[in-house]
Amino acid sequence: MLAKAFAAQSATTPLGPFSIDRAAPGAKDVAIDILYCGVCHSDLHAARSEWPGMTYPLVPGHEIVGRVRAVGGEVSRFSVGDLVGVGCMVGSCRHCIACDDGLEQYCEGPHGFTQTYGGAVRGGLPNTFGGYSEAITVDEHFVLKVRHGEKDLAAVAPLLCAGITTWSPLRHWKVGPGKKVGIVGIGGLGHMGVKLAHALGAQVVAFTTSPSKHAEALRLGADLAVTSTNPDEMAAHAGSFDFILNTVAASHNLDAFTTLLKRDGTLTLVGVPEHPHPSPSVFPLVFGRRAIAGSLIGGIAETQEMLDFCAEHGITADIEMIAMQDIEAAFGRMVKSDVKYRFVIDMETLRKAA
Amino acid sequence: MLAKAFAAQSATTPLGPFSIDRAAPGAKDVAIDILYCGVCHSDLHAARSEWPGMTYPLVPGHEIVGRVRAVGGEVSRFSVGDLVGVGCMVGSCRHCIACDDGLEQYCEGPHGFTQTYGGAVRGGLPNTFGGYSEAITVDEHFVLKVRHGEKDLAAVAPLLCAGITTWSPLRHWKVGPGKKVGIVGIGGLGHMGVKLAHALGAQVVAFTTSPSKHAEALRLGADLAVTSTNPDEMAAHAGSFDFILNTVAASHNLDAFTTLLKRDGTLTLVGVPEHPHPSPSVFPLVFGRRAIAGSLIGGIAETQEMLDFCAEHGITADIEMIAMQDIEAAFGRMVKSDVKYRFVIDMETLRKAA
Repeated sequence: MLAKAFAAQSATTPLGPFSIDRAAPGAKDVAIDILYCGVCHSDLHAARSEWPGMTYPLVPGHEIVGRVRAVGGEVSRFSVGDLVGVGCMVGSCRHCIACDDGLEQYCEGPHGFTQTYGGAVRGGLPNTFGGYSEAITVDEHFVLKVRHGEKDLAAVAPLLCAGITTWSPLRHWKVGPGKKVGIVGIGGLGHMGVKLAHALGAQVVAFTTSPSKHAEALRLGADLAVTSTNPDEMAAHAGSFDFILNTVAASHNLDAFTTLLKRDGTLTLVGVPEHPHPSPSVFPLVFGRRAIAGSLIGGIAETQEMLDFCAEHGITADIEMIAMQDIEAAFGRMVKSDVKYRFVIDMETLRKAA
Repeated sequence: MLAKAFAAQSATTPLGPFSIDRAAPGAKDVAIDILYCGVCHSDLHAARSEWPGMTYPLVPGHEIVGRVRAVGGEVSRFSVGDLVGVGCMVGSCRHCIACDDGLEQYCEGPHGFTQTYGGAVRGGLPNTFGGYSEAITVDEHFVLKVRHGEKDLAAVAPLLCAGITTWSPLRHWKVGPGKKVGIVGIGGLGHMGVKLAHALGAQVVAFTTSPSKHAEALRLGADLAVTSTNPDEMAAHAGSFDFILNTVAASHNLDAFTTLLKRDGTLTLVGVPEHPHPSPSVFPLVFGRRAIAGSLIGGIAETQEMLDFCAEHGITADIEMIAMQDIEAAFGRMVKSDVKYRFVIDMETLRKAA
């Protein structure tokens, strides 16, 4: 079953038309016609081989919303016509402790979880091709139900990565009413972090490097915006945060945030910087039993929980729709942080292409 | 009430005889004849002004065991003749959240907690003089009951700092049966960490830089010793630890230990390095939801809990007794880690001095 797609043929060639021979659905598989796919910064890192071990051709895309076209004989949870999502994972060992705990992103099997694209990077598995494509076939365990209305579907796509990557740590560190929570960086991930932390009932402070972004942060749901480059503004919040979610992947000074935590507070990083952060001071950790932690996307069960929560609360990403053919221009703008807050590809533009 | 003591008169002069005018006990105070005082690395840092803000004369010592000589009129928990201990704290605000939680070491009052010596470093409080002295007077809230037998008293002294500094994080991070726990560095703190983690029922792995220390680590209660400078030995334990307590204050590579943690495991630092650690990699944090945290000594309630636990389990520090007059030689050996594992000053040697 041939599916149109866009692929990088090497680290230095622009993405262009490609054809994938998608498998017919196996007994437990769901075949999906892709409607929308979000554009994550990871897509660019992978396409350009800014991460190690990439295999070409490479079809990015792991923020997928679509409609079920066909299901295998043993599929129980989905029917033809259902609206569904696929995120960063399409497989895992399914029998390690992490998988048993519903945290497939930390799969301890020999190959870890299977990434939605670039799956070949681990352990010699067949390569996987992602959502920059008109169709995909995925084991039903890794398919999510989408309960948003039809008009919201494009803006749901980024929930599958940006949404769950912020939701999982917010839930794990018990963000909710009575908690003061910081979100560092108001981009693709951060804008979802603000929306979700606000909807969870926390007092939300958005940290940005620029006062010009304050109004935007408040519009997204922050109770307050703080300019992280202004020491006086920062000092006013010393020792006051229960939890800070740091979505900034670029190297920066973490001490500015650890010192804002209460005793037993945690600063959680969801980005891996290309160059190391300056070594964080041990002083605020020891003198307040504070922690610096990390968190990786989220498990399938919590992704469904997040999608259902967002449907219930009317939450989607703020997006800018693009045509598949404009992906390189979108990458260029994304590098300059010139997007509010996520590009989403309308896959009709791929289907209609010659 | 004049008490003999040993003091540093400046950062560059050796400790020598000094006389303290100890206050008569106030209504809530306990006057203590000091029997033994442990020699903590902090004592040397303070005496030499390797930490900022020291005030001279400086009388070190915060691992104090003694006998009650007199009590104030409102003292309810102690009587003349009781065996008691005093650790790193002799005061705190007593009404902040941390104090209410029994964690006075994180006191959020305007001056934080009052250190047993060098108390003048914060907020212009009167300077405090520590345990290198024949007597001390302390508010009963900061006095601990010692339930060990008379013969163990010298070896109890280091529990007041080295003991509680390892006990508090072991308890906070729920070390016990079924948990695999690492202790990094087998010195004054680490040897207590091994003993306590073992007595708490955990599987204990001691990390040392030298294979020559393995036998010692096993004698102290470790189930296994691992040479942290041997990559193959370390790799065999990747992803297997629930908790690692790192007692090494010198700058070193933390990645070697974060990668040994299970998902959701924590590496807790109890030392503040003079020079920063190499910046820890974010990768093992993100890809396993691991954390790097810190911990500071312990609260008064948990110090009592630790002392009672140690009395019940027959746990004391491994010590080498010295005379007060030999403190500078002891400092010199301590700098070379030439002590197993704590020097303790016999205060009779001070009393008998001319």
